This record gives sequence, C-alpha cells and structure tokens, in this order.
Amino acid sequence: MSRTPLENLSGLGLELPPASVPTANYIAWKVARGFAYISGQVSIIPGKAEHVGRLGDGLTKEQGYEAARVACLNAITQLQAAAGDLSRVAGIVKLSGFVHATPDFRDHPFVMNGASDLLVAVFGEAGRHTRFAVGASSLPRGVAVELDLVAELKDEEEPA
Amino acid sequence: MSRTPLENLSGLGLELPPASVPTANYIAWKVARGFAYISGQVSIIPGKAEHVGRLGDGLTKEQGYEAARVACLNAITQLQAAAGDLSRVAGIVKLSGFVHATPDFRDHPFVMNGASDLLVAVFGEAGRHTRFAVGASSLPRGVAVELDLVAELKDEEEPA
Amino acid sequence: MSRTPLENLSGLGLELPPASVPTANYIAWKVARGFAYISGQVSIIPGKAEHVGRLGDGLTKEQGYEAARVACLNAITQLQAAAGDLSRVAGIVKLSGFVHATPDFRDHPFVMNGASDLLVAVFGEAGRHTRFAVGASSLPRGVAVELDLVAELKDEEEPA
Repeated sequence: MSRTPLENLSGLGLELPPASVPTANYIAWKVARGFAYISGQVSIIPGKAEHVGRLGDGLTKEQGYEAARVACLNAITQLQAAAGDLSRVAGIVKLSGFVHATPDFRDHPFVMNGASDLLVAVFGEAGRHTRFAVGASSLPRGVAVELDLVAELKDEEEPA
Repeated sequence: MSRTPLENLSGLGLELPPASVPTANYIAWKVARGFAYISGQVSIIPGKAEHVGRLGDGLTKEQGYEAARVACLNAITQLQAAAGDLSRVAGIVKLSGFVHATPDFRDHPFVMNGASDLLVAVFGEAGRHTRFAVGASSLPRGVAVELDLVAELKDEEEPA
Repeated sequence: MSRTPLENLSGLGLELPPASVPTANYIAWKVARGFAYISGQVSIIPGKAEHVGRLGDGLTKEQGYEAARVACLNAITQLQAAAGDLSRVAGIVKLSGFVHATPDFRDHPFVMNGASDLLVAVFGEAGRHTRFAVGASSLPRGVAVELDLVAELKDEEEPA
C-alpha cells in the first residue's frame, strides 16, 4: 500500500509549517468546481527559514532552490487546509513560479525545481504538474521566491 | 435582503466604467465550464483616471493602491459582461496582480489591497479570493498596475 | 466544411515543432476536468529559431512579435499532445504572456499579438482567448518571450 503525502513528508524529515493567515481582504485558498486555488506563498517560515534576496545578486541558484522548496512547503500547508486531507488531492495541476532575480539571471528552472521536486516527492505521480518559471524584478518583503498552485481535488464520492 | 453588487458599488459612490474592447486578436472575457476568465486590466479609465508610473520611483504605495482599485473596476466591468449580471457571480476565485515597481519595492501586498478591498466591498463574502502580488519591471503603456481575475459563475438553474 | 487546425497551420506554411520534454519533475501538459494546462513555453525551436534577448535593448518589437509566435507554436505542439487531436480543442481560454523587457518598454501587447494572431489563424473563433501581457526582468535561458496556455477540451461524447 502506498504511503500518504504526510508519510512522504515525514520520510523526508519535513513537517508542514503552520498556515499563514492573510491579514488583508483575500484568503489563502479557495475551492471552486473541484479545483483548489492557493494564494501566492513566499519563501519565509517564521522562526525557521527566511529566504530573502535576489538571485544573481548574492543568492546562489542552490539557495534559490531551497527558497522554492520553502515556499512550496507553505503551499502544501494551504493545500491541506483546502482539501481537508492531502489524500484528497487528485493531482497538482499548475505551479506558477516567480523568481526574484537580476536582469541577467537565466536559471529560473533550476530554482523552481526546489518546488517541483518536493511536489513529486510528496504526491508521487499525482504531484507531476505543469509550471512556468519567470523572473520578477521585485517581490513582497524582498523574498527570493513566490509561487502559487492550482490542484485538482477528488470528488466527494471517490476514496481519499 | 442583502444588497446587490451594483448597489454596493453605488453605495461606494462608484459606477462601472465603459468596457474597453481589445483591438487585437484576443477578447476581454471568456466563460468556460462555469469559470469566467478576465483579460489583464490596467489602471487607466479614459478621461477619468490614469495611473501610470513605477512604484518606488515617484509613485507612493497609496497611489499604487488607487491604481489597483481602478484596474479592478475595469475588471468588474468585464466580469459583468461575462456573467450577464454581477449577481450571477458565485465567487471571485483568483486575482493575479502585477505591480510596476523598482527592484527594491516591497509593498506589493499593500498596493493590491486596492483591488482586494474593492472586491470584498462589492461582492461581500463571495468576493474573498486567492491572489498573488508580484513585481513587474515594465507593463503595457507604463501603467502602474495590471491585474486579471478568474471568477466562478452560478449554474443556470441557480437563482441569480 | 471548415478546415482543421492542422490544415490552417499548413496553409500558413507552418508545421508543429517536435514537443520538448521537460527534464525535471514537471510535465509539459496536464488535463484536469476538461481543461488542458500547458507549461510555460519559450521562444526557441532547436535548430530552427532562437529568440533570445531583451525587448527595448537590441530586440525590436517586431522581433518580439516573431518570438511570441515561435513560443506559441511550441505551445500548440503541447496542446496537440494534451488533446490527442487539435480538433478536440473547444477553445483557447487563457494566454499568459511574459515579455523579457527593459523597465521602459511599453509595447508588450504588440509583442504578444504574435501569439494571439497565430491562435486565431489556427483555431478560428475558438482561438479567441483572454490574455495578460506583462514585463519580466529576466526569463529562463535569456529568451525573449515565455507564455503559457489554458484551453478547454471537448467532452468525449462531442464530435471532434
């Protein structure tokens, strides 16, 4: 019997960070017609990790990879809240990746692999997703990576 | 009985601007499988408001907030066309926010609150949405904000 | 009887490039609940076209238009794989356009018309789509344009 997403996370020595709660008039996730939309998540876990800065200007692409992994952990936390249980995620549909980078940076795909690798490690085949990876001249609070997710949820009658 | 989105707009002293019509081979909105997709809307209402420029370089974040509100008004106009009637909007699903900003700008969330606050003021709980807010080094016509929306529509048989 | 998308491509003197295969933990397309999501496609066709560089800094907007057309050809290749047959595409829903540009560039819509015009030439009315066009300070491998697509597919029982 295959392992659950949470067991996979444990196997990686990871645990989900607490869900951040937006302090403005938007929400962290919304479910509509079987899709879970997750708001943009950044590369900060308070007290644990803070990936701030610009790729190509001080941050290495390996640090960017870690930043994308951290932002993705935050996204998985929100997805758990949206789905109720990560086993109700039918698949990750889309990863939108924004990398805070200098004009000459070219390794956005390497950076976003930090998120893509984690999604597949946690969800297996269902975690394989479409994505884009682009450069942003600036991001909120100066973070290195912001990303968002769209996932498909199983229908109520399907076994979780 | 609760007020309609148009009544809420009136209550704010706002009216919907005329819909801009794309002059190229794309369209302002499209409905597919119960979702309304709205094309990128910018912070200009001809003859009324023109928010052009770069955050962190002349424009204050408060001006950015106004720019996002203006772009969102344009998006609500298009959403009305897509839905036929704003009362047929089941909910705002996703707000994608691009803020024209210098590399050191950090207050993208404050800016995009100009759109988020308007959506909740107009649609109430249904207006609470997921979003991302990122920096763009440049935007069409030099505008301060470009944003797009995805909304969920009510099914035909549901009361509007 | 109207021509098929592939016949329209032939009529333009174009053929679909080979599908690029992601070498990381993401996939080029995914179908969920009647929507086909396509990963970000760039303005390179190996051995055929390589649109690298920055709009407003060496590249003209006309070159940007060609770059967007090339990226869109790659996206249509992936859409064919997602749909099985391009005649199963009910419509192009959304085009997300990222233009590698200097801070003062303003003609993103002109550039992205290279993709929008191709979509309508190939799919006719069904190719008319919503879109956004924004500036990116940097893109993977230094390409001039990256774009992605969301399309709606016909249901199985509908004639292709």
